[in-house]
Amino acid sequence: MAQLSFSRRLRGTPYTQRLEAAGVKGYTVYNHTLLPTLIDSLEADCTHLKQHVQVWDVACERQVEIKGPDAARLVQWMTPRDLGKAAIDQCYYIPLVDETGGMLNDPVAIKLAEDRFWISIADSDVLLYAKGLAIGGGFNVEVFEPEIDILAVQGPKSDDLMARVFGEDARKVRFFRGLWLPFEGREMFVARSGYSKQGGFEIYLNDPALGSVLWDALFAAGADLNVRQGGPNLIERIEGGLLSYGNDMTRDNTPYEAGFGKFCGDAAKLQCIGHEALTRAAAEGPQRMIRGLKISGEAVPVCRRPWSVTAGGDHAGQVTSATWSPDFGTNVSIAMIEKAHWTPGTAVKVEAPDGMRDAVVCTLPFGPDAA
Amino acid sequence: MAQLSFSRRLRGTPYTQRLEAAGVKGYTVYNHTLLPTLIDSLEADCTHLKQHVQVWDVACERQVEIKGPDAARLVQWMTPRDLGKAAIDQCYYIPLVDETGGMLNDPVAIKLAEDRFWISIADSDVLLYAKGLAIGGGFNVEVFEPEIDILAVQGPKSDDLMARVFGEDARKVRFFRGLWLPFEGREMFVARSGYSKQGGFEIYLNDPALGSVLWDALFAAGADLNVRQGGPNLIERIEGGLLSYGNDMTRDNTPYEAGFGKFCGDAAKLQCIGHEALTRAAAEGPQRMIRGLKISGEAVPVCRRPWSVTAGGDHAGQVTSATWSPDFGTNVSIAMIEKAHWTPGTAVKVEAPDGMRDAVVCTLPFGPDAA
Repeated sequence: MAQLSFSRRLRGTPYTQRLEAAGVKGYTVYNHTLLPTLIDSLEADCTHLKQHVQVWDVACERQVEIKGPDAARLVQWMTPRDLGKAAIDQCYYIPLVDETGGMLNDPVAIKLAEDRFWISIADSDVLLYAKGLAIGGGFNVEVFEPEIDILAVQGPKSDDLMARVFGEDARKVRFFRGLWLPFEGREMFVARSGYSKQGGFEIYLNDPALGSVLWDALFAAGADLNVRQGGPNLIERIEGGLLSYGNDMTRDNTPYEAGFGKFCGDAAKLQCIGHEALTRAAAEGPQRMIRGLKISGEAVPVCRRPWSVTAGGDHAGQVTSATWSPDFGTNVSIAMIEKAHWTPGTAVKVEAPDGMRDAVVCTLPFGPDAA
Repeated sequence: MAQLSFSRRLRGTPYTQRLEAAGVKGYTVYNHTLLPTLIDSLEADCTHLKQHVQVWDVACERQVEIKGPDAARLVQWMTPRDLGKAAIDQCYYIPLVDETGGMLNDPVAIKLAEDRFWISIADSDVLLYAKGLAIGGGFNVEVFEPEIDILAVQGPKSDDLMARVFGEDARKVRFFRGLWLPFEGREMFVARSGYSKQGGFEIYLNDPALGSVLWDALFAAGADLNVRQGGPNLIERIEGGLLSYGNDMTRDNTPYEAGFGKFCGDAAKLQCIGHEALTRAAAEGPQRMIRGLKISGEAVPVCRRPWSVTAGGDHAGQVTSATWSPDFGTNVSIAMIEKAHWTPGTAVKVEAPDGMRDAVVCTLPFGPDAA
């Protein structure tokens, strides 16, 4: 394993010092920011997440704030998701596409007011894209990165821990909705969301100086809940079928290929960017799509570049994320699979770095009967 | 030191396999791409670079291609540098600024034709910014990331090595100019440029399949020149006063603060983005500016967040990059220093993570008489 060379450019967060004091073995870099990936081992981190409660430094989920008279018009222009009936303080998963229909990001948008949005981004500079659109199109908006640093609380005991720190109202937060809850004299947006399938919350900390205060409060309140630090876990997120922008889909993919057709409204009617390409793609239907693959054999190595998938010698797609799942007793992976081969149960071959392996197409999320 | 967790999202390059086979100890992530930072030790890598010749995988310097009838107009809109007389195949350092005058990137632009540019970017998604501007402003251009993977050849023996692989014409390439030179039946853009002060070239490889062929050709031809792999070296680049976007300047800084006033034309006349803010900044003159600081004491730790600089108890600026320089026998650093304290020779205090240190302001690049 190679070391990560630190510098200011790989931004720390209000939680970095606490996280490192508590112990972190591995990072990735996400939106120019450190994201913890490994605390103990992938397996131990996953098991703990499924049983207890974890505190995750996901400040790398940077916010792009769009504020002003043209804010709603600009946000709607950026996505094929129909935000016409969007409610205040609700979270909307909004694929962003360019003029070719290719995905530029898959953020969550929060409508804070009729003229004010946060876009909670995956790993690409949506700030620059939105600035470009606003400057180029003469939109009457401000586009900036507010000082928001998300701390996630994930795992089955999340409700109990959050209720102790933010009050019983925390339990009332509905899925992909938010409430403004009190902490240290401030109100913070708290959403029921997060990059795991174990349930939990994301706290939109709005004062970096309170980062370690919030961290300490969660750990003090959660000692008997076996709380510990964590981060997005490769095993759990692949088992759960949570896609990662830059890994499982890129600018080369439409939202339909990523399985996000359900989030796409009538692009032609919305006149969003890329509506011609999206309308065409919707009419034709995707020719390849995200699927799960169970890969046979011993634990696979890390997937650092796409692994070719074939069926009867024909190109059938590529694996983009893969890992050993102790709970399912097999390698689980996420792949982009061509239409001719995407039926669950289809047998394929995967060209892993250490050799050819048999694999079976299945639906996502993985389950005992997934194939 | 923490490990870096690999994934497809941290893109490898056509050189990654060769680089790792030859040995690489540390990476950073730059434009969603792996950038080697450590081969042997910072000191040994630096000494070798100053004496011999190194091959650097800097494919992370991604290109943004802007092509079409409005290409020149769009590129000029993005920068206060006057490109009115830009020559074909010449390299231009072009600060990019937003509507506030803050820097979004500090790339090198190459004018390939009247209607075709490459922008060789620092670490932010200029692709998305340019797409946003083009879509928003209705420019008649294509904006995309071409398959260009730069391999740099740096160090005092660079001319000899390049002449052996690309022919004697390589010696004729002038500083910040490029020539199209033959390699394996293709013509590749070769510029005299690179992120060191030891001289050298950047080869714009235009066929990823030739990555290892080019790597092997350079190593085969350079055995007696003591060629080895390398990467941007923290010691050498600070000694040389080479700034790093995201480290030494950010969106919070104007080009004038970064010392790039010489690259800024008459913004009002050019009507570039941010021209009002830039015109005001130029008239007022910068209130803080990039300087060197010699920091006393033992070798400083890695600068992961800005270190406060004070003078007589007053705020005087911040250190953003720092390291021990064996050649100068002191810690060298790059800092943003307030006007009242920026005169070379000024004594200041630096709040390093391990305690307060004395320091002296100096000009860049560092030299024996820098203070």
